[in-house]
Amino acid sequence: MENIFTHEYFMKKALNEAHIAFEKGEIPVGVVVVVNDKVIARGHNLTEMLTDVTAHAEMQAITAAANFLGGKYLTGCTLYVTLEPCQMCAGALYWSQVSKVVYGAADDHRGYRAMGGKLHPKTEVVTGVMAEECSSLMKTFFQQRRR
Amino acid sequence: MENIFTHEYFMKKALNEAHIAFEKGEIPVGVVVVVNDKVIARGHNLTEMLTDVTAHAEMQAITAAANFLGGKYLTGCTLYVTLEPCQMCAGALYWSQVSKVVYGAADDHRGYRAMGGKLHPKTEVVTGVMAEECSSLMKTFFQQRRR
Repeated sequence: MENIFTHEYFMKKALNEAHIAFEKGEIPVGVVVVVNDKVIARGHNLTEMLTDVTAHAEMQAITAAANFLGGKYLTGCTLYVTLEPCQMCAGALYWSQVSKVVYGAADDHRGYRAMGGKLHPKTEVVTGVMAEECSSLMKTFFQQRRR
Repeated sequence: MENIFTHEYFMKKALNEAHIAFEKGEIPVGVVVVVNDKVIARGHNLTEMLTDVTAHAEMQAITAAANFLGGKYLTGCTLYVTLEPCQMCAGALYWSQVSKVVYGAADDHRGYRAMGGKLHPKTEVVTGVMAEECSSLMKTFFQQRRR
């Protein structure tokens, strides 16, 4: 039987979170955290609504996942995020020791690779999953803003 | 008249926060955020109590300061922290555009300089303020833990 729980399956759920952010006027980035093919946490960017630069989707989802698990480490978890994490979020992911990070669109300006940040050496990274959809949502957002 | 509001004056207040963390069994790092010689936010590491790797002193103080100011940017603010920020906190400070970061002890292993993170180009950095006191509190904490 075909496994329906592909990276695309969960990235669609992260994209759904990004769409919720979009509708709120927030930069559209979404996240889900998955363990054993189950979503245990989700989040979307809320920096404007919360007036808080730390309220990135990843940060909220890391906190929520730890809360769900009852422990601060996310070993055994995969975090799906529509955009390459920034250095703040990469730093939080580093501390969490998350097992896998799957991201959609690259962020060549403010992503952790450009900024010089690091994920944990034990964290596996998968890139470019539904990159086109993730990226075009961002582009649409900034185009609407400029109008 | 002598200005009592020196870097040492505010670092002592950050150290006081670090001592509160110590008493709670948390890695002893403390922060205050200052505008016009007034402390507008304070915080200490609460990663164990909150079971949350994102609950560093700086992260909480950035959120609290933005809350106090009613805006997400900390331009005009100085953040005093007893230990060199990690890449996560450096990333949050980057987004906040804080005007000045003053830290005590260097962290050659997990500090943002070693990890490759960046503060905002407009952020002035002052290092080594009461470094000895900040560092020895950390050392005492880890010595007690090993016993």
